[in-house]
Amino acid sequence: MDVKIDILTLFPEMFHIFNYSIIGRAIEKNILSINTFNIRNFTQNKHRKVDDYPYGGGSGMIMTAQPIVDCINSVKAQNKGNVVYLGPRGKIFDQSMAKKLSREKELIFLCGHYEGVDERVYRHIDLEISIGDFIVTGGEMACIPIVDSICRMIPGVLSSIESYTEESFYNGVLEYPQYTRPEFFRGDRVPEVLISGHHKNIRKWRRAKSLILTKSKRPDLFERIELSKEDRELIKLYENGYTD
Amino acid sequence: MDVKIDILTLFPEMFHIFNYSIIGRAIEKNILSINTFNIRNFTQNKHRKVDDYPYGGGSGMIMTAQPIVDCINSVKAQNKGNVVYLGPRGKIFDQSMAKKLSREKELIFLCGHYEGVDERVYRHIDLEISIGDFIVTGGEMACIPIVDSICRMIPGVLSSIESYTEESFYNGVLEYPQYTRPEFFRGDRVPEVLISGHHKNIRKWRRAKSLILTKSKRPDLFERIELSKEDRELIKLYENGYTD
Repeated sequence: MDVKIDILTLFPEMFHIFNYSIIGRAIEKNILSINTFNIRNFTQNKHRKVDDYPYGGGSGMIMTAQPIVDCINSVKAQNKGNVVYLGPRGKIFDQSMAKKLSREKELIFLCGHYEGVDERVYRHIDLEISIGDFIVTGGEMACIPIVDSICRMIPGVLSSIESYTEESFYNGVLEYPQYTRPEFFRGDRVPEVLISGHHKNIRKWRRAKSLILTKSKRPDLFERIELSKEDRELIKLYENGYTD
Repeated sequence: MDVKIDILTLFPEMFHIFNYSIIGRAIEKNILSINTFNIRNFTQNKHRKVDDYPYGGGSGMIMTAQPIVDCINSVKAQNKGNVVYLGPRGKIFDQSMAKKLSREKELIFLCGHYEGVDERVYRHIDLEISIGDFIVTGGEMACIPIVDSICRMIPGVLSSIESYTEESFYNGVLEYPQYTRPEFFRGDRVPEVLISGHHKNIRKWRRAKSLILTKSKRPDLFERIELSKEDRELIKLYENGYTD
């Protein structure tokens, strides 16, 4: 096993999602393991409760510290990785974090639910990550895409055919438009350059399209690109109506 | 049925995740329906293929236009909502988009997979949304948290106890620290103000903590807050070491 990921959650069933597609295949090939631990199994409450009302009043239920902390301690006995909490105070997840975390051999993810966790749980957390500026029903909804994004960067998870070097964000630009067969589809034709076999022109067309898409759709990313002389010429050429 | 959501995907099994927790309960209560359509069922390829090599070369497989477009057209016969594509060129999803989309009565989500979809599919897309600046194995990984976030804003989905008015981002600030029983947990005590019963002080403490957390963890959000005179005084007081 190259990478070991343990996930602490009240909804282990949600992680059946990793049985499918690319991550499912990587688990089958023993490149990584993803195991879940049900926080509820660690509660000392006689009714198996894991939440309670907030001190100071207000709506919503708060996850109690005891089952979470005991679950973390139990998992730590066999996983030396950092404890990552999916929460709104964290830095917003991006591809550079995916790359960095994909180099870890062990990781523990903690999913909160309801209105959040008792603040005293924070002592046991090494890193907090946010999925973005929106609210989800539970940390599971953030954990799933984040773990997916990290795992696909682990060597061996993507086959060579799924190679990722040209994908959006990997180089700070959006990917160029892609086409596959047939050449004509309901009146829409593949751009001629792509079937020309002229590799230099294809490369230029793709670079121009990437840059122009990034400029129009994600000006914030575009600002950070260090444009070469050729880049600037390509943008000018294609913005002035050059098509193929 | 108040809201109808149809999802087009190559991995319908992944959406079993909506059988659980808050969204699962809302579906059971017929507040909303989430149905999946397998794009593969629409392919005219005799080997049931849904992808092919990109024109112009390069690694990765591209989803062909035909099964996707036919699947969209089929679903549109019974769903008049916008077609939302989860892709990197979209605006990054946030709480204001969640709120806006939660007012729609019908929505269609399209999940791409592999290296993306044939560009000619874009003619059939009304809106593209991005989950953030990171790469996932498929649009499903973006669709799941986004649909979750939209659905929890639909009236009736959250019970009154799960009321969301005070949560992070809802008011542009991070939520204050929350505590629940017991008062003492392994040497850590709940802040005295929260058990004082003094509502005005509790409100002040919470507001101060929210503001200070936002200032330190998310300066980008903090900059956009319109601070009242009381806010500024609270920050000063608590930053100077006032605790309860």
